Amino acid sequence: MSNKMWGGRFQSAPDQVMEAINASIDFDKRLYAQDITASQAHARMLAATGILPPDDVDRIVEGLQAIRGEIEAGTFTFSTALEDIHMNVESRLTEMIGPAAGRLHTARSRNDQVATDFRLYVRDTLDRMDEALKGLQLALLDKAEAHADAVMPGFTHLQSAQPVTFGHHLMAYVEMIGRDRGRVQDARKRMNESPLGAAALAGTSFPIDRRMTAEALGFDGPMANSLDAVSDRDFVLETLSAFSILAVHLSRFAEEIVIWSSAQFRFVKLSDAWTTGSSIMPQKRNPDAAELIRAKTGRIMGALTSLTIVLKGLPLAYSKDMQEDKEPAFDAIDAAELAVAAMTGMVKDMEPVRERLAAAAGAGFSTATDLADWLVRELKMPFREAHHVTGRIVGLADGKGCELAELSLQEMQGIEPRITEAVFGVLSVENSVKSRTSEGGTSPENVRAAVRAWRERLG
Amino acid sequence: MSNKMWGGRFQSAPDQVMEAINASIDFDKRLYAQDITASQAHARMLAATGILPPDDVDRIVEGLQAIRGEIEAGTFTFSTALEDIHMNVESRLTEMIGPAAGRLHTARSRNDQVATDFRLYVRDTLDRMDEALKGLQLALLDKAEAHADAVMPGFTHLQSAQPVTFGHHLMAYVEMIGRDRGRVQDARKRMNESPLGAAALAGTSFPIDRRMTAEALGFDGPMANSLDAVSDRDFVLETLSAFSILAVHLSRFAEEIVIWSSAQFRFVKLSDAWTTGSSIMPQKRNPDAAELIRAKTGRIMGALTSLTIVLKGLPLAYSKDMQEDKEPAFDAIDAAELAVAAMTGMVKDMEPVRERLAAAAGAGFSTATDLADWLVRELKMPFREAHHVTGRIVGLADGKGCELAELSLQEMQGIEPRITEAVFGVLSVENSVKSRTSEGGTSPENVRAAVRAWRERLG
Amino acid sequence: MSNKMWGGRFQSAPDQVMEAINASIDFDKRLYAQDITASQAHARMLAATGILPPDDVDRIVEGLQAIRGEIEAGTFTFSTALEDIHMNVESRLTEMIGPAAGRLHTARSRNDQVATDFRLYVRDTLDRMDEALKGLQLALLDKAEAHADAVMPGFTHLQSAQPVTFGHHLMAYVEMIGRDRGRVQDARKRMNESPLGAAALAGTSFPIDRRMTAEALGFDGPMANSLDAVSDRDFVLETLSAFSILAVHLSRFAEEIVIWSSAQFRFVKLSDAWTTGSSIMPQKRNPDAAELIRAKTGRIMGALTSLTIVLKGLPLAYSKDMQEDKEPAFDAIDAAELAVAAMTGMVKDMEPVRERLAAAAGAGFSTATDLADWLVRELKMPFREAHHVTGRIVGLADGKGCELAELSLQEMQGIEPRITEAVFGVLSVENSVKSRTSEGGTSPENVRAAVRAWRERLG
Amino acid sequence: MSNKMWGGRFQSAPDQVMEAINASIDFDKRLYAQDITASQAHARMLAATGILPPDDVDRIVEGLQAIRGEIEAGTFTFSTALEDIHMNVESRLTEMIGPAAGRLHTARSRNDQVATDFRLYVRDTLDRMDEALKGLQLALLDKAEAHADAVMPGFTHLQSAQPVTFGHHLMAYVEMIGRDRGRVQDARKRMNESPLGAAALAGTSFPIDRRMTAEALGFDGPMANSLDAVSDRDFVLETLSAFSILAVHLSRFAEEIVIWSSAQFRFVKLSDAWTTGSSIMPQKRNPDAAELIRAKTGRIMGALTSLTIVLKGLPLAYSKDMQEDKEPAFDAIDAAELAVAAMTGMVKDMEPVRERLAAAAGAGFSTATDLADWLVRELKMPFREAHHVTGRIVGLADGKGCELAELSLQEMQGIEPRITEAVFGVLSVENSVKSRTSEGGTSPENVRAAVRAWRERLG
Repeated sequence: MSNKMWGGRFQSAPDQVMEAINASIDFDKRLYAQDITASQAHARMLAATGILPPDDVDRIVEGLQAIRGEIEAGTFTFSTALEDIHMNVESRLTEMIGPAAGRLHTARSRNDQVATDFRLYVRDTLDRMDEALKGLQLALLDKAEAHADAVMPGFTHLQSAQPVTFGHHLMAYVEMIGRDRGRVQDARKRMNESPLGAAALAGTSFPIDRRMTAEALGFDGPMANSLDAVSDRDFVLETLSAFSILAVHLSRFAEEIVIWSSAQFRFVKLSDAWTTGSSIMPQKRNPDAAELIRAKTGRIMGALTSLTIVLKGLPLAYSKDMQEDKEPAFDAIDAAELAVAAMTGMVKDMEPVRERLAAAAGAGFSTATDLADWLVRELKMPFREAHHVTGRIVGLADGKGCELAELSLQEMQGIEPRITEAVFGVLSVENSVKSRTSEGGTSPENVRAAVRAWRERLG
Repeated sequence: MSNKMWGGRFQSAPDQVMEAINASIDFDKRLYAQDITASQAHARMLAATGILPPDDVDRIVEGLQAIRGEIEAGTFTFSTALEDIHMNVESRLTEMIGPAAGRLHTARSRNDQVATDFRLYVRDTLDRMDEALKGLQLALLDKAEAHADAVMPGFTHLQSAQPVTFGHHLMAYVEMIGRDRGRVQDARKRMNESPLGAAALAGTSFPIDRRMTAEALGFDGPMANSLDAVSDRDFVLETLSAFSILAVHLSRFAEEIVIWSSAQFRFVKLSDAWTTGSSIMPQKRNPDAAELIRAKTGRIMGALTSLTIVLKGLPLAYSKDMQEDKEPAFDAIDAAELAVAAMTGMVKDMEPVRERLAAAAGAGFSTATDLADWLVRELKMPFREAHHVTGRIVGLADGKGCELAELSLQEMQGIEPRITEAVFGVLSVENSVKSRTSEGGTSPENVRAAVRAWRERLG
Repeated sequence: MSNKMWGGRFQSAPDQVMEAINASIDFDKRLYAQDITASQAHARMLAATGILPPDDVDRIVEGLQAIRGEIEAGTFTFSTALEDIHMNVESRLTEMIGPAAGRLHTARSRNDQVATDFRLYVRDTLDRMDEALKGLQLALLDKAEAHADAVMPGFTHLQSAQPVTFGHHLMAYVEMIGRDRGRVQDARKRMNESPLGAAALAGTSFPIDRRMTAEALGFDGPMANSLDAVSDRDFVLETLSAFSILAVHLSRFAEEIVIWSSAQFRFVKLSDAWTTGSSIMPQKRNPDAAELIRAKTGRIMGALTSLTIVLKGLPLAYSKDMQEDKEPAFDAIDAAELAVAAMTGMVKDMEPVRERLAAAAGAGFSTATDLADWLVRELKMPFREAHHVTGRIVGLADGKGCELAELSLQEMQGIEPRITEAVFGVLSVENSVKSRTSEGGTSPENVRAAVRAWRERLG
Repeated sequence: MSNKMWGGRFQSAPDQVMEAINASIDFDKRLYAQDITASQAHARMLAATGILPPDDVDRIVEGLQAIRGEIEAGTFTFSTALEDIHMNVESRLTEMIGPAAGRLHTARSRNDQVATDFRLYVRDTLDRMDEALKGLQLALLDKAEAHADAVMPGFTHLQSAQPVTFGHHLMAYVEMIGRDRGRVQDARKRMNESPLGAAALAGTSFPIDRRMTAEALGFDGPMANSLDAVSDRDFVLETLSAFSILAVHLSRFAEEIVIWSSAQFRFVKLSDAWTTGSSIMPQKRNPDAAELIRAKTGRIMGALTSLTIVLKGLPLAYSKDMQEDKEPAFDAIDAAELAVAAMTGMVKDMEPVRERLAAAAGAGFSTATDLADWLVRELKMPFREAHHVTGRIVGLADGKGCELAELSLQEMQGIEPRITEAVFGVLSVENSVKSRTSEGGTSPENVRAAVRAWRERLG
């Protein structure tokens, strides 16, 4: 079957193959804003250091600004023959201001130029991501606070283990996202050095001022080694690594949402905005957004794998292989931003079905541990013996088909005579969660305190 | 720094986020030809089985054909609101032929439809790839034949170990590509079953004829289980796995080409078509194509990683996660096709620098193994002892600063008196490679025989 | 905190670091059986071709056999100083039979030796795996047959979509495993060529008979190119690729088992053999085996990633990097074999809770599609209109809090007057699955036929 | 072919399969030191808070200390039946001190225990790695200083682009390793919180003091959420991510060392300690250590892939899948530590072949850029025009078969009359590198300043 538009386009002339493999303008046009801003900073520095005449620089800076306007207005024509964003911009600049445009490239090379552009782009991404993750934390805090005392099963192996609260469960994700933000901020800090002025790879003999361009572009300073400056892609690897860990967190929550939305669980109700329905089965509410978030882990980790393989074993300083850094990075960045936006929206709209959660929390002798701990604490039983006694009491309830709190005192005393009325204080789910007041434990007051503490941290 | 066109587009309304995460038309429009062909086959079957009236089917088939024409003419307007290629086509069909269009979806669901479309697309890819790889083999055979007796160093650890011929080296890649084709063909065979008719996941109660649609679409038959039919993505995983192994092969050859093109090696000369130069350093010939081929390994393996992660742990039958199968697959398919096309072109144009290869082949006592083997064969020395004697003779040559063949018989006899004049027959590089006549060995006549055998296989 | 046994062992002398990085005996001793068998075949060929005297060869073969006995009896002492399995065996052989042992290495090198050993090992693995997968298929067939008519929900998005049968669901996995076996068999076939006789990389001048050793070792013939023979690791990559796809299948089923075992689903009951309990919560049945199977996907895909990265960009013929092929492969092979064994055991013991499955199958208007199809088929409504009518009827049932089959004919006729009594024939879950008789559909008779067909194929 | 020791061991009884899949003692015994230290801290806290009687605690702490001694003396018998390190230690403790041992587990669960042990282990790893990387930096600084003015080609595309110095090249790696250390330190800081006291997942009702145990174990404080505490594996993912980026750096340097060691380059001479030779080819010096370092990238990235796949989509809090976190992590940690140790040793012993480097640096018109920059700077030519003139001058030299500095002034003036004698000041390699004094540029004085600055930072 032939596919005229997308298939078989490489049985063609060498020059077409080479253009297809070489040209990057299709994807690196994303860098236009960074490219122009960096060029303007470079030009101004060339004037300030006397390398270029101020008049030329003024025309360069203004011309670049006009080009920025054209691109944002959609009137700029990108040309594949010009290969990349840098040549597209420079060529247009030459049309606009004539040969002075040719001076812009003084004391610079495409190597440090693209390194600077991409670094600025990734830095912008990290800043946006940090902000977006804060938004997700705030959404989680609101829900956690509203449901600080809503009991639900705490799962191990997807089996109910001990009661927790819905708020406590959400706060676990606030912690994870907090670490994700830490990684994003650390990456941002580590990468915030300017490659500009490294030139092709060896630095330059022009009396440039790298600190000036660094400052103009918001960098903390210039990178210390010119070879490193043009060959380093750590900032992409570290960003993708941080996003990949974030994606794991989102995937875990997304999985829970998918399971919780099943007819069998019905732990949460998602809004129409984040689900799709079926024209003939009105009760169906497919958690599409959660599923797509879950899948994005693959995209992001795939991009990290991709770039790691690309860079593995590359000699310094620049090899063409490194042009393959951008598409996977852009794809992963989009995936991560989209996933965070969708998760934030979903959290805001999500409503726990409290009665379902409570019923599930109380089923399955979920307070057996509380009983065992009571025996240890009150009767000073060794831990292992207390477990043995608890097992027998649970077995009695299981045989009778009732829950632990439904046994009589006498029945329990039949197994361990020292048990007192006080034991009922720990057998209910509500008391169980209330009693878990150890630091970081699930008690509602702990959850509320954690929410308050986080709100303060987030300002 | 703000980037108006690509940044920050997800701080927007939920419906925009959901559309961005949900819509697939941007990438699945690639499937238009497969989608239309499959729909036509389905419609014809519905007529043949009496499920739909022939008149309606005629109009459907013709309408679809017209839509195919519009898309290929570039006059079709794709709509994101219609989400995917299937709805885009169906909606246009309704415009064209009215409500009869609504009958096309009888006894079918989007689940089996998309599975069919994507499977057809991947099958086309496998067919094209098999053909492209044959082209690469033919290019290698031509070069191997032309240089069947051009001696060069056989490397281990990038150190010269034993002389081989350039033709023999290239024939190693013919073998690898041969296995790659085997994998492509096996994958093609295994995946050539039709999901069409599995409907949503359970099959249908309409009296459809799955064998008829399967045959019309070139499938060997229908898939045997409807749940499997809509949830299987093995055909993508297996294709990406095969392409990933192929990419490893290409990366190894690309690495050799990059090293061979260095000023220090100068083993091959690449044509202008596959290199880029420097405006001020005319001797510079950057092996861009080879570097980009080498990098594609990352893209392809990244896609395989991505899809594996997406599918891991997904319950049957369909989850929205599975929509994430296409973009990485398309990206990897393009990368693989492009890499093969570029490598084929490069091989055709590549010229070995025979005198450089020969000089390198003869340096470094590269026939020491031949000497040791001669001692074993002619003097019946045990292997380990022969190695000891050889080491002493090489040491003598090393001390004198000459090659082995430049030692006198007397000098060698000073170390092992039984050595005869005949030894010189194995000390030259040419004789060394000629003597390696064991099956698969590097002798020029072996290489030529291998070329002939492959030409016959390739028809 | 110091960890005397495992920490900080590399702050040591260079020779210790180099030994640690270089020695492979800790893991390649696994290859002892293959190494000895291959050496015996090589020795016998050297005698048959007159390269070595028969007496020496007899002693070599017997000595090797004795060493095999020592290793299997656990009395062999492995030495790290001797680096690898080959040198350990050869050194012991020298102790046993003296200098004749030194002749064994005639016309062979460690490069083709290790390639042969590892290939034999992987081939054995593929054979065992094919057999193990057949066992898993048989276990699935037994269960599928026993529950060919047990209705359950067919899920999309983990939401009930249409009823299917438990047997049909299991048969989807029989299909997947069938494809896995196809990949295993194809890989086995493709890799069954002998590297032995390629020597270091160039072949040899000894008049060896590579067909003889190939046949003795069960290979289909010798590999055709000596450089390829020592540098090829496709057979490992292809095996890991096939196992990785298999692992995806197992992970999907494992995920279902984990979800089905939750208190909320209770779709299946696992036996004690494959679960762990809690000493104090007797009802808890943690699906440990399923969770570990699910996790093995990571181990196997991790190994494939690892080896792909190792091989990417390696020049021919042999680089020390390639020694890193074995540990990840062994780890992945163990993981895959273990996962299949555990899954087979779990399937054998697993019992569906038929009443829970049936109740879930009938909930949520799961036969709405059947109603729509009835309207299309019997009343000749266009598909899209039938969907609209169905949506209204479902809405009516939803409002009344009943299932579709509990509506009266009058109520349905209120929406669509042409509906007749016959409609009730498609509204029950049992009739729904029975009606899905299209090829590959979920009807019990289809499932039983599929089981029969598979039993025949499996012999 | 049967392999009695390692093959086919899973065709066995379910209990053997389950033990094989379940038991972790084979690998988690590495955690013995961390397990014992954490248990001792927990026990002391139980005494301090009055939860356990001081006498019991004293016996527990002493017993654990004795067990530590047994393990380090090699006299401890590990039992697979006891599954993991925790049960092995506890069981031995019971043998030693009787039922009091059973009290140790009060207010603790295996979930927080293993999380604490593993976290401590990874923290120790990060500390050792930071120190080891400092050692590598110091080795690089020594070499860089010694060869601050040794000219060599600066490569792009493995083609000589501009001269740099050997010292400058090495300093690029000092920068990379500096960032690696930053990542290690950030990871260490982020993960230094104590999970101990989170109990199974919900916290506990015992009045424990989590700050006391946290402090005793060197943590900055307790983790804030009990569910997060037992389910978090970020610290492993982040460590593996950091090590993976480090591995990319090491692989790039290793690749350079392999290429530089080839007969064609001969840029460096490695010592015997880090190479292997050939018994019959004395000049052969296989860079085994460099090749193995290069390969370790695969192992480390493979482990990261593995764990990411394992964790993807796991619901909170604990699933058995998470037991699969340790083996890949241990393998990657060993690989990373070994690679750094070997690289440090290799750098210390490595000697650049200065005359080869210098000759290569001067070949190929490598100062063409210097000429172009001179034209821009001195003659105020626009950049693009200067490139054009330079190209013509280089063409002239190329035609004459000489280097740029060998042209006469007249010859150059024939192309551009304004060129003066002063131009020769920039045409030599030595002057070229000296002139690159821009911040981070390759001039020897820059290199020496960078070395001094780094020495100060490293203390």
